[in-house]
Amino acid sequence: MDSGPTHQAVPHLTTALTGPLLALEERFLERETRIEQWFHERWLSAPTPFYASVDLRNAGFKLAPVDTNLFPAGFNNLNPAFHPLCIQALQAAVERLCPKAARILLVPENHTRNTFYWENIGALVLLLERAGYHVRIGSLLSDGETPPSMTLANGRALPVARIIRDGDRVTVPGFNPCLVLLNNDLSAGPPEILKGLAQPVMPPLSLGWWNRLKSDHFTQYRRLAVEFGEVNDIDPWLIDPIFRRCGRIDFQKRDGEDCLAHNVDEVLGLVREKYREYGITQEPFVIVKADAGTYGMGIMTVRHTDEVRQLNRKQRNKMSVIKEGQTVREVMVQEGVYTFETLGPQQAVAEPVVYMVDRFVVGGFYRVHGTRGIDENLNAPGMHFQSLAFADSCSNPDGTQAPDAGPNRFYAYGVIARLALLAAARELQGTAGASA
Amino acid sequence: MDSGPTHQAVPHLTTALTGPLLALEERFLERETRIEQWFHERWLSAPTPFYASVDLRNAGFKLAPVDTNLFPAGFNNLNPAFHPLCIQALQAAVERLCPKAARILLVPENHTRNTFYWENIGALVLLLERAGYHVRIGSLLSDGETPPSMTLANGRALPVARIIRDGDRVTVPGFNPCLVLLNNDLSAGPPEILKGLAQPVMPPLSLGWWNRLKSDHFTQYRRLAVEFGEVNDIDPWLIDPIFRRCGRIDFQKRDGEDCLAHNVDEVLGLVREKYREYGITQEPFVIVKADAGTYGMGIMTVRHTDEVRQLNRKQRNKMSVIKEGQTVREVMVQEGVYTFETLGPQQAVAEPVVYMVDRFVVGGFYRVHGTRGIDENLNAPGMHFQSLAFADSCSNPDGTQAPDAGPNRFYAYGVIARLALLAAARELQGTAGASA
Repeated sequence: MDSGPTHQAVPHLTTALTGPLLALEERFLERETRIEQWFHERWLSAPTPFYASVDLRNAGFKLAPVDTNLFPAGFNNLNPAFHPLCIQALQAAVERLCPKAARILLVPENHTRNTFYWENIGALVLLLERAGYHVRIGSLLSDGETPPSMTLANGRALPVARIIRDGDRVTVPGFNPCLVLLNNDLSAGPPEILKGLAQPVMPPLSLGWWNRLKSDHFTQYRRLAVEFGEVNDIDPWLIDPIFRRCGRIDFQKRDGEDCLAHNVDEVLGLVREKYREYGITQEPFVIVKADAGTYGMGIMTVRHTDEVRQLNRKQRNKMSVIKEGQTVREVMVQEGVYTFETLGPQQAVAEPVVYMVDRFVVGGFYRVHGTRGIDENLNAPGMHFQSLAFADSCSNPDGTQAPDAGPNRFYAYGVIARLALLAAARELQGTAGASA
Repeated sequence: MDSGPTHQAVPHLTTALTGPLLALEERFLERETRIEQWFHERWLSAPTPFYASVDLRNAGFKLAPVDTNLFPAGFNNLNPAFHPLCIQALQAAVERLCPKAARILLVPENHTRNTFYWENIGALVLLLERAGYHVRIGSLLSDGETPPSMTLANGRALPVARIIRDGDRVTVPGFNPCLVLLNNDLSAGPPEILKGLAQPVMPPLSLGWWNRLKSDHFTQYRRLAVEFGEVNDIDPWLIDPIFRRCGRIDFQKRDGEDCLAHNVDEVLGLVREKYREYGITQEPFVIVKADAGTYGMGIMTVRHTDEVRQLNRKQRNKMSVIKEGQTVREVMVQEGVYTFETLGPQQAVAEPVVYMVDRFVVGGFYRVHGTRGIDENLNAPGMHFQSLAFADSCSNPDGTQAPDAGPNRFYAYGVIARLALLAAARELQGTAGASA
């Protein structure tokens, strides 16, 4: 996962398709102060989900989020030049939620020895320490299992201790944290040991994937896109992927196939209409994904309705089980958004991922993949994408440069990513009462 | 005021004298998380003064603030690479003080057509706009005077309107601000038009130079330096200049000369003792400055007690009147701190200035002066220093590099500057009840 050459810090857009996106970027630039003001107003009544990463797809004519991760990994992929932004935002986030916090217990994923993931944990620990917090890593693994003892590429050891429950608090030996920070998406459900704690748990257990549906997120996002579009005179479709959901799917038993086929058909039809309206000659496609899925598991690209009726055993297996062995029952059918950002002479496909802490964009990177297509998901298990850190920050557009110049494109990414963050905040409001 | 060559982004320290400073920087590095934690705790009970700049002097063996400006100019001198930090911190500052603010009235200095100053106002306007606030510039000039109409080097016009009082609010035509942001240090006293407003005024009128004394600031700073020194096992003298104050001075009538001579003598003696303790062979000196002075007016370097007894007419004139024609009555005698940071083959003298917004260090620059001595003030009227923006942020030290490597030296600057910011916060607590 090397960084690419620095002179290629911004992928090239396939230029024929940039017309409407240029218009979008221009609109953002013109209205920047008002857009920021709009965000300030929205945040007055919304809680902050601590941190998040948002996968975007940039089709040139359309810029939209396709996934929002509230337990983001990949902090190691950010440009170190923007670590100060991260440090400042971490201080703001902790202060907002828990002003007296001095000691933070960071809870990583279980069952992974993925070195990239642990570099992420290492980066988070370092950033939190620089922000002025003492950090220990506490594992959710149960008594019989041994937490991994990892060593980072720079030689620093990352000791991992098993979490101990003590009344209404959790500790690790010699460390009584004021705050529990989750970097574990809780796919398997809210852990008993973290329930009913006196210590604040951030993000809250209710935002784990056991309780969260992508379709809820995108329902919130859709409302915000409409509102944002009205205020800024933007067709919300240009920033929002169309979607439908199917409950009660069983890929193994081939239950729910009709619902799936119907929804695929409907989404393809709606996208076709929009493509016609904007003179886009590409073929529409949809992404079928587990509604509670994560880690890029349980995802497929579909171009024709027939494809979901003719899934072979291997495809059905692939779609039916996601992380922690959870069975897929609910599925989202989402408009596929082409990525027309490519990098280098090989035209490697690139997809931006934007990182936020508190309400602030703190950086991002491109997932760059040499052999995947422009209509494929770039985040899949075992996939070794290259990461290319954003060269500029996302909060400092420059009206004297072209609308698609680096700082302005990154600003556009930051605007869309923050819309997705707001959508997550509204999910949080919605689930605040959820039992955890 | 050009930026220097970027390969000279950090001045060289005269190496013979760096021993104790290296020790200081090393201590800061070792204890970074605890230092940040200490700041978090202090901020829990202290108000934030919105923004500030702190002039530091780096003698190699000693790193100390010599002036803290709560109405900082010079935002145009910061490294644009750190504008995102500024934007983020401005959002934090406004949100903390006035969460619903959408429109900000920025009040600049009167009576100046200094183009550098207006570039500063232009930079502040741009940063506030990027942070999501609508900004107008409102002048305190009275009816008979015409506010200047300035044009920035980039061609942008900066319209300045006269402030209108309307009941308990101030406005400018077509603009009803939620917040009044002062970039005017109120040397002439709190303006009638800003008294008793329904809108918040930041920084508060009570922090203007009409009401503030440098000696009060350094009294607060001294307490913090002692506390910080105890916690971190650092001799507070290494970060704190010794000082004394004289009230009831009249330079024209030669009143108070004895007090001045006595204090100069005492400070020189104390510094001489400390120099002996640390084996420093330089000659001690003191800076005599107006206790309420600003803009580098009313400042002189003194090496012997006799000098303050033998002031000629020109020197007495220079010391007796400061900005807005205010007569100097109170004087501070402050230990002079050598600057042993020099730049380039000409060994131009450099002095760091650190900028903070809310509680965050957002950048800084070196004042570089080719013809001034290492024991002279570099901020004086009509002085055309060069500015060299900091190349690194002040919040991201790197333990894998030498203690005096760029990021680590900037971190040390940021620590000391934030101690001065905390001292200003305590002044604010002290003056909160002052009538304004």
